[in-house]
Amino acid sequence: MGFHTTPSHASKYLFRQLFEKDSSTYTYLLADVSHPQKPALLIDPVDKTVDRDVSLIHELGLKLVYAMNTHVHADHVTGTGLLKSKVPGVKSVISKASSAKADFLVDSGDKIFVGDLFLEVRPTPGHTAGCVTYVTGDDPNQLEPRMAFTGDALLIRGCGRTDFQGGSSAELYKSVHSQIFTLPEQTLVYPAHDYKGFVVSTVGEEKQYNPRLTKDEETFKGIMENLKLAYPKMIDVAVPANMVCGLQDPVPTTV
Amino acid sequence: MGFHTTPSHASKYLFRQLFEKDSSTYTYLLADVSHPQKPALLIDPVDKTVDRDVSLIHELGLKLVYAMNTHVHADHVTGTGLLKSKVPGVKSVISKASSAKADFLVDSGDKIFVGDLFLEVRPTPGHTAGCVTYVTGDDPNQLEPRMAFTGDALLIRGCGRTDFQGGSSAELYKSVHSQIFTLPEQTLVYPAHDYKGFVVSTVGEEKQYNPRLTKDEETFKGIMENLKLAYPKMIDVAVPANMVCGLQDPVPTTV
Ligand SMILES: [Fe+2]
Ligand SMILES: [Fe+2]
Repeated sequence: MGFHTTPSHASKYLFRQLFEKDSSTYTYLLADVSHPQKPALLIDPVDKTVDRDVSLIHELGLKLVYAMNTHVHADHVTGTGLLKSKVPGVKSVISKASSAKADFLVDSGDKIFVGDLFLEVRPTPGHTAGCVTYVTGDDPNQLEPRMAFTGDALLIRGCGRTDFQGGSSAELYKSVHSQIFTLPEQTLVYPAHDYKGFVVSTVGEEKQYNPRLTKDEETFKGIMENLKLAYPKMIDVAVPANMVCGLQDPVPTTV
Repeated sequence: MGFHTTPSHASKYLFRQLFEKDSSTYTYLLADVSHPQKPALLIDPVDKTVDRDVSLIHELGLKLVYAMNTHVHADHVTGTGLLKSKVPGVKSVISKASSAKADFLVDSGDKIFVGDLFLEVRPTPGHTAGCVTYVTGDDPNQLEPRMAFTGDALLIRGCGRTDFQGGSSAELYKSVHSQIFTLPEQTLVYPAHDYKGFVVSTVGEEKQYNPRLTKDEETFKGIMENLKLAYPKMIDVAVPANMVCGLQDPVPTTV
């Protein structure tokens, strides 16, 4: 056991992980810097950190094309709405199964390109009914090892709760086992949140050490039913906002 | 502009970044996983997160050899003392210039090996009199791009304060310019802290965008003298503890 956590194609693609401390959310920036326009995408941006993200993108000389969500978050307001107002031309992306509004609604097997770099869409419902995992491609000109942006389906040594938003522990168990644990073991796992200070894991590690998803399905369901978690603090604010990608209130377009 | 943030030698070396939220400290784990013993080192471990780190090291099958500090921290207690009590054989490492106690006191140009992987010691005083930056080697069998663990000398778009612990803004300016900004532009910058959710930067980025260290020396000194920062909260607890690598009180050896 022991995987290096850093992909190849060092000169062609750019990758940055960013953290929002109040909600412990990770935002991910990916770009093809070998392409003349340096097109980029953000996965799971947060409203509070949009200015930081826009400034970094500007400094790195990137052109933001997509602002994507893995799912309708209940713990923070997505940054996609603000990004659309601050960076002309940015398109929001979320799964069709989420029933949310966005410029592009993606479905199982869809590919999202920035330059030569692409992400595959894998449906991973269970935390919410519309959760997807975005996985970098397995072509020779893609990143190696592959990267899986798992949202709240699979967290490092954990997983998202299943008691709200069309959640289902049976669905989540099936999603992780069929859509994530079938990826190569060295695939890097980049979740939407971490609460213990982990930054990355691998499919191999989670298959061996995830305290929930290494259990059989019945045990897993028992664990998820007995978490006794509090009502999600932000859910009544965040979900309505996130159902329209953070655009429920018209955002003043002061750039 | 736009560097990929991820080194090569994906199968030979392991790298993990870890975060301690209360003090916003990054801890770094490096190992040679191609070596039969999988020897590893930790840079800037925190007392509060030692159990997490020990558990990860165990799961990854690594043998922790060194627990190192970039400097005598004033904002948290180092984990090196606890690590020595919990993992037999671990040696603590700090710079000779720090005047702190440790198993190994390192000096300019020293190399610290785990398996084939090594770190070079570069003195970078100014935040404290004994600050060092640990930089991965530039041999063909080392990581590419190189990684600089800058402690509080160079932070992402910032730097450590210079008003305590033998700090000097003139010294810090000289240190960063002569010891860090002379590294290749794609060198990855991994600081001891980040307060804005950045995870990594590069030498090229900081040379271009660091709001303090891109200024001339006189302007830099003016900035540092006018920060009006509060007295460091933890300094009276942390510094005495860290001067002896966290071992001032005998730690009960319950493993
Ligand atoms: Fe969620
Ligand atoms: Fe410090």
